[in-house]
Amino acid sequence: MTTISALFQDAALLAQSDEASVTAATDRQNQLTKPQGSLGRLEDIAIFMAGWQGVEKPAISNGYCLVFAGNHGITAKGVSLFPAEVTAQMVLNFEAGGAAINQLCQAADLSLKVTPIDLDKPTADFSETLAMSADEVMEAMQIGADALPADADYVCFGEMGIGNTTSAAAICTSQFGGKAAEWTGAGTGLDNEGINKKAQIIEQAIAKHGTGFDDTIALLSAYGGRELAAIAGGVLAARARGIPVMLDGFICTAAAATLTASFGKDVLDHCLVSHKSQEPGHIKMIDALGKEPLVDMKMRLGEASGAALATLIVRGALAAHNGMATFAEAGVSGSDD
Amino acid sequence: MTTISALFQDAALLAQSDEASVTAATDRQNQLTKPQGSLGRLEDIAIFMAGWQGVEKPAISNGYCLVFAGNHGITAKGVSLFPAEVTAQMVLNFEAGGAAINQLCQAADLSLKVTPIDLDKPTADFSETLAMSADEVMEAMQIGADALPADADYVCFGEMGIGNTTSAAAICTSQFGGKAAEWTGAGTGLDNEGINKKAQIIEQAIAKHGTGFDDTIALLSAYGGRELAAIAGGVLAARARGIPVMLDGFICTAAAATLTASFGKDVLDHCLVSHKSQEPGHIKMIDALGKEPLVDMKMRLGEASGAALATLIVRGALAAHNGMATFAEAGVSGSDD
Repeated sequence: MTTISALFQDAALLAQSDEASVTAATDRQNQLTKPQGSLGRLEDIAIFMAGWQGVEKPAISNGYCLVFAGNHGITAKGVSLFPAEVTAQMVLNFEAGGAAINQLCQAADLSLKVTPIDLDKPTADFSETLAMSADEVMEAMQIGADALPADADYVCFGEMGIGNTTSAAAICTSQFGGKAAEWTGAGTGLDNEGINKKAQIIEQAIAKHGTGFDDTIALLSAYGGRELAAIAGGVLAARARGIPVMLDGFICTAAAATLTASFGKDVLDHCLVSHKSQEPGHIKMIDALGKEPLVDMKMRLGEASGAALATLIVRGALAAHNGMATFAEAGVSGSDD
Repeated sequence: MTTISALFQDAALLAQSDEASVTAATDRQNQLTKPQGSLGRLEDIAIFMAGWQGVEKPAISNGYCLVFAGNHGITAKGVSLFPAEVTAQMVLNFEAGGAAINQLCQAADLSLKVTPIDLDKPTADFSETLAMSADEVMEAMQIGADALPADADYVCFGEMGIGNTTSAAAICTSQFGGKAAEWTGAGTGLDNEGINKKAQIIEQAIAKHGTGFDDTIALLSAYGGRELAAIAGGVLAARARGIPVMLDGFICTAAAATLTASFGKDVLDHCLVSHKSQEPGHIKMIDALGKEPLVDMKMRLGEASGAALATLIVRGALAAHNGMATFAEAGVSGSDD
């Protein structure tokens, strides 16, 4: 098992998309019984999956959905409408099968694994001090990496953590520039007054810890949280193994984006962004990362709900790619072009 | 079995969404373990399905995908890159299971029914004369209505017909105004010169047959084609039975939109628009109908491929709606709001 610290020391351990498989999958798409390009992004998805799985006909045979939960000291500042104990209550709900992500994983045939991380030990209030130590960041990242099953051929990431849109907005303000207010949204449902207060608290944190980090660990240490660090570790471990990743919404994407501080933007080449969240900062961050969300269902739930939903689209794309006949096989005339 | 002609004679035969079920489903959504509204359009879809199925917890137990095929005399004018015989070849491909729609129906657990209509009898070249007689329109509409299985609780519509984007663009120009060029796209892959020529042929047809029809049958008689009339008949029959409908892209939506000539815009209240097609006229038409597409995957294939794909999203929406626990059931604290 490759450790997170080894990956930080040697970026050459990160896998690359297989060019031969990309070429083979592209050729296949161009022979299938449809006008070339007419399946649009479904074609792109299939070719992306081919490259990362290193086969002409990619499949999701062992698809996982990894959800990490953490608690946030910043909730003491009243940044969320829900009390912090809801994080643990929702973990129980995940385990009992009652949450949105349980149903969406079942619909998308994904195995759900929920990992609560030290829920009784919230990160510190990062508007006052560092959210956690560098050792705590590394520990949480390794938990994320270790959560990736040995047989995974596709993985969704998601999170649960009351207060964590505040961490995510601070990370974005730090790494992508602009005022905190541009990255701050309603979370679970704040009104405008609440959003303004949340943005002020983030500005206070930014003034304390600074911006433009070139070190993922220092960035996560400043703004937290444990579940975000675990996602970053899981996404990095998936990249080392060449496993395609589906990112969820604002918080999950921000967690993955922390990796760009140490590794640059290409570190997320194996990631799709599932959906455009209602959090106003999400689409700005997606643009900055050079990605395009697959769907926009006006969702703002987290829990990997958008990632699981978008997996249904990926399954459709793979079904068409793998199962369609070629023009030659079907005896269909090509275009006059 | 209600006939199409009876529905034209008495609009009171059309079913309405059940308000009590809409209320019950809305109440349920507001008690599920998530911030209210956080599943966005997934909530809207579940409530829409509840209203049309007349139950608090809607389901797709007998979902169908009905694809109609027809041939078009307008192809003599060189409006498509593919030869007209591809329509029949693709019907064979559907029957052999080799097309995109076969794979997408399997992924979405839909039963595919393909109905070719008089492929050896193309409609007339509508830039010269009426595409077909009123009797032929009624016959094709009844074929569409009769294709709707007795046990259907959800139905996707789609089409195959070389040349039929030309019919669809003519219908849009006639009913939604503007120049033909605004409604004319590349179809299976025309270049700009080809698109301009296609728009000129449509203008010629518009000059001959006129615009702003208030009679669906006369409109389809003018611009065709048989598969579009069948879709219109199927969508109307579904409305009479209160069955929710998923429309495919540009051609399918134009076919359904012909019903608004006789019945007004509300006749499509039971329809969702699956996706935004690459045909430039599609989003203008969707806006004019007061709808919003579910996904935008840059697709332009037809065959109900977008409708089958969007059905995966509907299945996700229903899974969440029906399977999630309420706050009370899960023992999760509500918001402080």
